[in-house]
Amino acid sequence: MLKFDKHIFICINQRPTDSPRPSCGESHGMELVELFKKKLKEKKLSINVRAQRTGCLDVCDFGPTLVVYPEGVFYVGVQPSDVEEIIEEHIIANRPVQRLVLDKSKY
Amino acid sequence: MLKFDKHIFICINQRPTDSPRPSCGESHGMELVELFKKKLKEKKLSINVRAQRTGCLDVCDFGPTLVVYPEGVFYVGVQPSDVEEIIEEHIIANRPVQRLVLDKSKY
Repeated sequence: MLKFDKHIFICINQRPTDSPRPSCGESHGMELVELFKKKLKEKKLSINVRAQRTGCLDVCDFGPTLVVYPEGVFYVGVQPSDVEEIIEEHIIANRPVQRLVLDKSKY
Repeated sequence: MLKFDKHIFICINQRPTDSPRPSCGESHGMELVELFKKKLKEKKLSINVRAQRTGCLDVCDFGPTLVVYPEGVFYVGVQPSDVEEIIEEHIIANRPVQRLVLDKSKY
């Protein structure tokens, strides 16, 4: 039995401003964390589903990124406007939002 | 197919010093992150296994804590001296280290 039915880890990694690689933390990573937490609470899902900040998920070039476990589905280029759809479709209905899923041929 | 065979999230949450709840970040959370990364690299596992920092895993009273996905096994009270055993037993041999696994009757 899992402690959480779904566990969402959202990258908020912040590189130095002169780094050649992009940072999810700069691209609204923390805004995504807060938005997931708020919506999960509103939908009364926050006992069995947890969303939280994490460090670099190693797919920086496609950020902002997050991963949903136990499935291990990586989402890339996630916008605040995508959060509702990810919760309704993936978290509740178990249908990952394919248009945002990491294309594994790219890494 | 998972991006990582095992994905280890280690809490480094740091509460204000006057908080009544303990913080994994104060109790060598970051030391555990660095130790996992170092050992995974030494053992040439760091392509398929990722260890990284995360925020609060919601089991603060039993910290320092970490979770290994895709299994969703939570470890509590983890000491730096436990890292080698977790890697050899759980990450490599798929046998979670039961003496450190979160007792689900406690939460």
